[in-house]
Amino acid sequence: MARKLYELCGRDPDLRFSPYVWRTRMALLHKGLEFESVPWRFIEKEAIAFSGQERVPVLVDGETTVFDSWKIAEYLEEAYPDRPSLFGGPAGLALSRFVSAWCSTVFPRVAPLAIHAVHEVLDPANQDYFRTTREKMIGRPLEEIMGDRNKRLEALHAALEPMRALLADQPFLGGNTPLYADYLPFGIFQWARVVTGAMPIAEDDPVRDWFERLLDSHDGSARQAKILAVDAA
Amino acid sequence: MARKLYELCGRDPDLRFSPYVWRTRMALLHKGLEFESVPWRFIEKEAIAFSGQERVPVLVDGETTVFDSWKIAEYLEEAYPDRPSLFGGPAGLALSRFVSAWCSTVFPRVAPLAIHAVHEVLDPANQDYFRTTREKMIGRPLEEIMGDRNKRLEALHAALEPMRALLADQPFLGGNTPLYADYLPFGIFQWARVVTGAMPIAEDDPVRDWFERLLDSHDGSARQAKILAVDAA
Repeated sequence: MARKLYELCGRDPDLRFSPYVWRTRMALLHKGLEFESVPWRFIEKEAIAFSGQERVPVLVDGETTVFDSWKIAEYLEEAYPDRPSLFGGPAGLALSRFVSAWCSTVFPRVAPLAIHAVHEVLDPANQDYFRTTREKMIGRPLEEIMGDRNKRLEALHAALEPMRALLADQPFLGGNTPLYADYLPFGIFQWARVVTGAMPIAEDDPVRDWFERLLDSHDGSARQAKILAVDAA
Repeated sequence: MARKLYELCGRDPDLRFSPYVWRTRMALLHKGLEFESVPWRFIEKEAIAFSGQERVPVLVDGETTVFDSWKIAEYLEEAYPDRPSLFGGPAGLALSRFVSAWCSTVFPRVAPLAIHAVHEVLDPANQDYFRTTREKMIGRPLEEIMGDRNKRLEALHAALEPMRALLADQPFLGGNTPLYADYLPFGIFQWARVVTGAMPIAEDDPVRDWFERLLDSHDGSARQAKILAVDAA
């Protein structure tokens, strides 16, 4: 196939967890575009060197190579204008950037709950890489980042208040159907779900209902994705 | 004139400070619609009883009466589709609701910095009403709500991070030109500016630059509005 998506995976090549790749995966599903998935791991820098940088997602679409999930979404919108829109026009695009910026403040509330679990799904060589780079970034051992789990969950719950309030009025950020603005936070929660085997949001939270609706969207593709098997999820 | 906007004012009828009325005022300016301003104070319930409720903004547009700033914006968009759009289409409308929900989490960060100042600009009868209702709501004397001003300013600065990040990419939430999504947070800051005589955001903050651009928009209408005179603003 002429379309390839490089996706971060664990030692199990079917365990795909990158929040950014999930955004791209949902964008491709939204556009109804088929693609070949190429499993990729942190240390396989040479495999995506052709893109001129070292991170996924990388999308190869015929002659075109695009990296960075936001840029890929913009590319898909421009290259496939006749497919369902990801942004719903210029105003939707501008305001999706606001949702993206807001997501950057939510990500640090989810990361402590998931980061050690990411380490656990990697093979030894990638574990070394992940631990070294992340501990340098954060300044603490991976095992000490979560701290008090209940306090972390409370902080996340508080951070999600704008989504919760919005979801009282409409089923998706995009309105009656999802837009890229939905896939932005979705990627973050799907990341946590894949590596920990569970969602860090309570079942009675409207944000959880929204997440479940997105798992069911596009023929349940995100729900069928492999997640970490846990005894009591 | 057939179009009237009921606006909250202080003992000085020219001091218009309601964050919600400011949203409506900017929406009317955006649409290029002239209107007669009707000064209104908290205790003048009978003056707007015709609207079936007790709060401003109330817009009377010919035969139509609309209250609630969000509903007024939706009304204006529908009633004047040929004027500049406030939402930029259905996706823009849906995502503006997200900005509105986010603003509801910012408002409590600004309110402690402005609420006592609101009291100070009212006449004695409205002061009594304002103090009684607000102290009942908050559970503390108005004079004790601000607490440590620097800590309040820091908390507000942190809460504005999504806007700050977005404004690195584009001049307005709406993109290259403002949309209703911009007037939502604008109203909150203009409220604080009018009653305290100063903006609670540092001059070197991109959010401040955005605010100044909005003060200049629509022929500088919001900049020309009367604000509390202070010795060292």
